[in-house]
Amino acid sequence: MFVLGIDPGLAVTGYGIVAAGNPIRAVVAGVVRTDPEAPVAQRLGELYDDLTALIAEHRPTAGAIEEVFANRNLQTVIGVGRASGVAMLAMTRAGLEVAEYTPSAVKLAVTGYGDAAKEQVQAMVARRLGLAATPRPADSADALAVALCHLQSLSLRSLIGEAR
Amino acid sequence: MFVLGIDPGLAVTGYGIVAAGNPIRAVVAGVVRTDPEAPVAQRLGELYDDLTALIAEHRPTAGAIEEVFANRNLQTVIGVGRASGVAMLAMTRAGLEVAEYTPSAVKLAVTGYGDAAKEQVQAMVARRLGLAATPRPADSADALAVALCHLQSLSLRSLIGEAR
Repeated sequence: MFVLGIDPGLAVTGYGIVAAGNPIRAVVAGVVRTDPEAPVAQRLGELYDDLTALIAEHRPTAGAIEEVFANRNLQTVIGVGRASGVAMLAMTRAGLEVAEYTPSAVKLAVTGYGDAAKEQVQAMVARRLGLAATPRPADSADALAVALCHLQSLSLRSLIGEAR
Repeated sequence: MFVLGIDPGLAVTGYGIVAAGNPIRAVVAGVVRTDPEAPVAQRLGELYDDLTALIAEHRPTAGAIEEVFANRNLQTVIGVGRASGVAMLAMTRAGLEVAEYTPSAVKLAVTGYGDAAKEQVQAMVARRLGLAATPRPADSADALAVALCHLQSLSLRSLIGEAR
């Protein structure tokens, strides 16, 4: 099972795909950057196309996105909201169900602690995926954290299902 | 020239198309409602499809959207942001340039007063479009206001261009 995680933003959207297994491994991670000089609608189009191409290439079977809206300025909130909507559309149009997680849920799943610092989360992502270094840019590490969180949640649900 | 105006929201998105002329007339106005029980990604897909079908049917030549993010609760902001991103994507994918206006800019353009009450704006929309009653639901009147605002801005720019 391949799980795609997304950390959305208008300027930079992080993505990461992890594969189930023991150990879990990272399939791909990176960021989509959009042209800050271009009109917003065109930037959303670039984001949609790049995510659609990514999904077509790697064929994840589940998707998850981070809800990050609090504690940001209004302009950032607008951009994150729009990027988030377009990313969700790209996933659902590719046939993926889209799970949503708050930042605290992601931190809790990855580090065991809902108030963990961003750096702790990123270091734990590298450790759990057996990577020699923390993935850069940070948005790609954040996206891998979202993917890990969702894979863990799916595995747990599947175990609960089997136990029944 | 047909101008499409959008007042975005996850639950209800208003749309309205106005045609240039003297008087300006309303071509169509209404709302897209999405199923509150459905997953968010699926609701965004419904919104995208409905707006794409609307554009294909009426062939507007310009598009505009209202930025409404302030003074709302976080859950509403998330929904409006996502719906707004998907609406902009639908317009740009149909070849429309997308203009953005703040609520104050729309009020100013339609009523001559940036702090006008919502009801005043809606009444003025009906009056300027020669409609016997205020369009209902209110989101469709708000969308017509956005379209009127953009048509006015385009006409002004065109007059300035001619004067030069």
